[in-house]
Amino acid sequence: MRALVKTAPGPGMQVQDVPKPKIGDADVLIRVTHAGVCGTDLHIWEWDSWASARLKPPVVIGHEFSGEVVALGADAAAAELLQVGDLVTAEGHIVCGHCLQCRLGEAHLCRRTQIIGVDRDGAFADFIAMPASNVMKLDGIPAEVGAIMDPTGNAVHTVLEGRMVAGSRVLVIGCGPIGCFAVGAARAAGASLVIASDLNARRLELARTMGAHVTLDAGKDDVVARVRELTDDDGADLVCEMSGHPAGHATAFAAARLGGRVNLLGTPSRSTEVDFARDVIFKGLTLYGVTGRRMYDTWDVMRRFIRSGQLDPRPVITHRFPMDRIADAIEVIKHGEAGKVILEIGG
Amino acid sequence: MRALVKTAPGPGMQVQDVPKPKIGDADVLIRVTHAGVCGTDLHIWEWDSWASARLKPPVVIGHEFSGEVVALGADAAAAELLQVGDLVTAEGHIVCGHCLQCRLGEAHLCRRTQIIGVDRDGAFADFIAMPASNVMKLDGIPAEVGAIMDPTGNAVHTVLEGRMVAGSRVLVIGCGPIGCFAVGAARAAGASLVIASDLNARRLELARTMGAHVTLDAGKDDVVARVRELTDDDGADLVCEMSGHPAGHATAFAAARLGGRVNLLGTPSRSTEVDFARDVIFKGLTLYGVTGRRMYDTWDVMRRFIRSGQLDPRPVITHRFPMDRIADAIEVIKHGEAGKVILEIGG
Amino acid sequence: MRALVKTAPGPGMQVQDVPKPKIGDADVLIRVTHAGVCGTDLHIWEWDSWASARLKPPVVIGHEFSGEVVALGADAAAAELLQVGDLVTAEGHIVCGHCLQCRLGEAHLCRRTQIIGVDRDGAFADFIAMPASNVMKLDGIPAEVGAIMDPTGNAVHTVLEGRMVAGSRVLVIGCGPIGCFAVGAARAAGASLVIASDLNARRLELARTMGAHVTLDAGKDDVVARVRELTDDDGADLVCEMSGHPAGHATAFAAARLGGRVNLLGTPSRSTEVDFARDVIFKGLTLYGVTGRRMYDTWDVMRRFIRSGQLDPRPVITHRFPMDRIADAIEVIKHGEAGKVILEIGG
Amino acid sequence: MRALVKTAPGPGMQVQDVPKPKIGDADVLIRVTHAGVCGTDLHIWEWDSWASARLKPPVVIGHEFSGEVVALGADAAAAELLQVGDLVTAEGHIVCGHCLQCRLGEAHLCRRTQIIGVDRDGAFADFIAMPASNVMKLDGIPAEVGAIMDPTGNAVHTVLEGRMVAGSRVLVIGCGPIGCFAVGAARAAGASLVIASDLNARRLELARTMGAHVTLDAGKDDVVARVRELTDDDGADLVCEMSGHPAGHATAFAAARLGGRVNLLGTPSRSTEVDFARDVIFKGLTLYGVTGRRMYDTWDVMRRFIRSGQLDPRPVITHRFPMDRIADAIEVIKHGEAGKVILEIGG
Repeated sequence: MRALVKTAPGPGMQVQDVPKPKIGDADVLIRVTHAGVCGTDLHIWEWDSWASARLKPPVVIGHEFSGEVVALGADAAAAELLQVGDLVTAEGHIVCGHCLQCRLGEAHLCRRTQIIGVDRDGAFADFIAMPASNVMKLDGIPAEVGAIMDPTGNAVHTVLEGRMVAGSRVLVIGCGPIGCFAVGAARAAGASLVIASDLNARRLELARTMGAHVTLDAGKDDVVARVRELTDDDGADLVCEMSGHPAGHATAFAAARLGGRVNLLGTPSRSTEVDFARDVIFKGLTLYGVTGRRMYDTWDVMRRFIRSGQLDPRPVITHRFPMDRIADAIEVIKHGEAGKVILEIGG
Repeated sequence: MRALVKTAPGPGMQVQDVPKPKIGDADVLIRVTHAGVCGTDLHIWEWDSWASARLKPPVVIGHEFSGEVVALGADAAAAELLQVGDLVTAEGHIVCGHCLQCRLGEAHLCRRTQIIGVDRDGAFADFIAMPASNVMKLDGIPAEVGAIMDPTGNAVHTVLEGRMVAGSRVLVIGCGPIGCFAVGAARAAGASLVIASDLNARRLELARTMGAHVTLDAGKDDVVARVRELTDDDGADLVCEMSGHPAGHATAFAAARLGGRVNLLGTPSRSTEVDFARDVIFKGLTLYGVTGRRMYDTWDVMRRFIRSGQLDPRPVITHRFPMDRIADAIEVIKHGEAGKVILEIGG
Repeated sequence: MRALVKTAPGPGMQVQDVPKPKIGDADVLIRVTHAGVCGTDLHIWEWDSWASARLKPPVVIGHEFSGEVVALGADAAAAELLQVGDLVTAEGHIVCGHCLQCRLGEAHLCRRTQIIGVDRDGAFADFIAMPASNVMKLDGIPAEVGAIMDPTGNAVHTVLEGRMVAGSRVLVIGCGPIGCFAVGAARAAGASLVIASDLNARRLELARTMGAHVTLDAGKDDVVARVRELTDDDGADLVCEMSGHPAGHATAFAAARLGGRVNLLGTPSRSTEVDFARDVIFKGLTLYGVTGRRMYDTWDVMRRFIRSGQLDPRPVITHRFPMDRIADAIEVIKHGEAGKVILEIGG
Repeated sequence: MRALVKTAPGPGMQVQDVPKPKIGDADVLIRVTHAGVCGTDLHIWEWDSWASARLKPPVVIGHEFSGEVVALGADAAAAELLQVGDLVTAEGHIVCGHCLQCRLGEAHLCRRTQIIGVDRDGAFADFIAMPASNVMKLDGIPAEVGAIMDPTGNAVHTVLEGRMVAGSRVLVIGCGPIGCFAVGAARAAGASLVIASDLNARRLELARTMGAHVTLDAGKDDVVARVRELTDDDGADLVCEMSGHPAGHATAFAAARLGGRVNLLGTPSRSTEVDFARDVIFKGLTLYGVTGRRMYDTWDVMRRFIRSGQLDPRPVITHRFPMDRIADAIEVIKHGEAGKVILEIGG
């Protein structure tokens, strides 16, 4: 089969012919039709310090996808929840099921997690083998949407964590694809006011399309002052920090209300100076670090949001490429103007 | 001033001239413009066993209202949160502030609660005195809506209690006014599917207007079977039991999913046979009894829902009367065809 | 190997020679050393209506046990969490891992649960095969305690569910073995006052041994009045209903404080009349039905309680028999004077 | 009456004769018998930048105290919860009751909080006037303990926030008085392992007296490595950061388990570099800033812990002085060897 492979240490990836994956008793084989290209894939393409420390080439890249079930292992078939022909997507974190975190319902923090497309072969390929328990039926969700439920789930996790969103005033800092999905998720979950901030006008436009009531240009607007103005001087009940920049952290802590919450998903590349006394302790703030998707509460809510029409991530998709144009896909992501970029793999 | 007074034990009420209420330091005086007529007022009119055991005539009736602040006590003024001319509504449960429940944030269960229009003079009058801490500014909410935020709050309390509503499948049993408000509150809070059931076609029509995705005629449809069908055979995540009938309880327990929740607001007039083993223990259900409105979490979310346009209870209002036509108001409520009934009191 | 088998429909069980169980890739084989005899085993022995409707003989009985790992399937070995020689116990509910409940962290309510000793071969035998993910290492916990962690876990689940137990006043109704374990679990979890009630003086003595501050004889004491007296007239914050009797339900609802909680584990054999208005709605009570043990939060807390010495269930063990004296074990349970009864199986 | 007064900007305090405070309708007058000296009082004594920016002399100092009710305002008397002769303590944060935080049950974060001894006259005096709703009866708790329930409450708030403590492994960083109280509170709440770290051997000894299972000398021991060793390599479920030092923050984030929680009470005087990616996001940590005491959940649990004997803060008291020896009290606190320091004021 064809696959996009990091063949050896160093930048780039190559389309290669590789053997079709084998499946174990608990696995299913999926013919991939659509895949999402993620910032992580950019890091892998560029072979930055994180990528070179973690990946062991050769490895098939790609962790966001949808496709069609074409074969089931014996146990997966016996479970009778999936069958050949089902259109599906999958959680890309394959977890051990035995560690403290897995046992306590925090499997997204499993210490032995293997991520497809990073730690084992991934989804930029004609076929992928997945444990049946990671597979989610689309049940009418369009395949293109299925391909981006992994990052949409990151957003849903960020928005839903820790307090009732219904009736809340939410600030989303950073309107890359996951920030835009967070805007849509906050609206779906009944937020009363969603404010989005970014430096890029194109991204703010996407945020508005996804339902932001107000968008702020962090380069021109005084974000904290505007948030206070829009919230009866309270500040935001929930801040979703999706930028990963120290400036985003500072804004998040200042814009959150007394007793508010800051959920952090944007991954910083360097450290941030924090005045814990002023910004966290005297404000009674709660901070929470978002990794992956809750397995599987996040998926369950997300599927319902999408199937009911409450959340439609498609407006964020700005580019579609065939698999062999991965270089172009990487290029538009690097350029910063793209929303979500999709690879169209199967027919 | 004019007021609707239960002058003595026995059925009926009378419009009378009574002295304008005096206010203490912590109180505000409100000129009433609109008031809601509640099932409780019907019980008081009819002088049933509950009413005769609890009320000590003479007492001015009415606990749902909105109006305009016309005077403030010294401490209420000093708090600087309200001023003359503010349009307001109020929580009608006046609580002690000192008991265990008040101290633990469960003031809606204060054991010394005094309810206006029941235990002390109420709102079917030109003026009412209220503790400033019970008063909520309308901030642009229409006065007519302000007059029914008490029962809307009952619905919001019922819907929001205990688990994330976002993405849930909710069954509302009983589509009187509070049931209809619950339908709207569930939609506002991000429920993915709202099913409403009642025996009365007119009420089901109101429920649809408030956003029910599906309405079921409990006299004709097999409610439990239909709920399963509509929820991938899971059952409802949350059931709001607003009917108070043993048949409603049976449906609630059977229609809730394994691990689901039944919030009970409808007040039964008699006891129900419960098979705890089958219906509660083996199903892992949670049941919760709803009294009043959480003070003041419920009010805060409700105000935001209404101000943002997520929840508009007005379609449920079917009748409006001047205060001296209370007998007509009581009559349409008794007849069972009314949604919410409003008294127009002030100019 | 030897096993206690329900060989055919009808009362009794027999010690038989049966083949040693085979293990799959994800399983481990355990040599059983100790097992607990449960009320469920009594129902199976007597072949009551529940047992005759559910069991398909021949089936090896027994679901509470501890033992030593003697073999591992390939995947179980690869997980590297268990090895030959480990002393272990196990969760006896084998769940599907795919249904809504399993996906949401409510696997104890899995709709396809198979219970060992009921739906598949159990633990009153020289050996048992178990999925590795159900197995828990004892890590120094005595084997006899390991054999009763299933019912102890029922008690821990009942006590910990839904609100902070620390500082609470807890009433335990019914002091059979699980009620007595609940007394100990409430003490371990920081309850400030634990009151236990039963009709049987011997059981109340066991409850005192497990740490009850006060025991009440439900046949002589006015339980509700005494609870009020002992709680500054508030009532109990948490009631654990372990009796399954309608009288226990009535006491539970009356003894719980306004805003309190009643967790129900005792399985009634008939229905109860409930005055929802008086007992649940106006009191703002929460009721919760307890099935099994949370997988695996309950196990994790229980293991820590036991390993740290906070909870020691051993005083509840009153009888020990070899496997072939099952008839005597059943007899002492039926008689009502026993605490927990253990079968000593292996060396 | 006598009082310790900050008479003018600048270091020190003076014992002066000042008028006995007047009480309003909602207030009670309390004859102070015991008071606690706090780090905050040291800042006020030394007139550091925080103190000089916040205090408006002349002001009576002191916010931790106990005493006897000697008079009640009309409304306070009418509430019938307090009477002359009651031994009491009080929450020293006087809140507005009207802001968003007060309305949502987060009054400890009220934006108009007035702290006694800081923003209005305090408790180092023969008498103090307090709103009745802030006053808590001792009900048998020794007066000396009553005088330090304010800081004990800080510790209880820190320990109880956010997850079930029962069965947890807790690390307390910093064993000043509040850290030592946190050790005791964690034990009372059912923690299975309490580890305490500090640089000072005397403080570690106090922590052991309060129930720490293990104490670590942060100057010699590798705290993070030792915590992992003691927790099956998991890390701590809950870290209570009481030191306020950047080194304490670094230890807290590193010692918390994946999915763990860090509650921060120690007030840093400078900022901390945080690697949010490594320490918060990839670990899925929750951080929470602790201000004051939850009003009044914290008080309720604390009162029960103390009355039941689960928590006894007295071993932490190392010094007692009469009011006119405030300079000596300040001196021993500055010196760093003291536990809790008490002023004995009344007879």
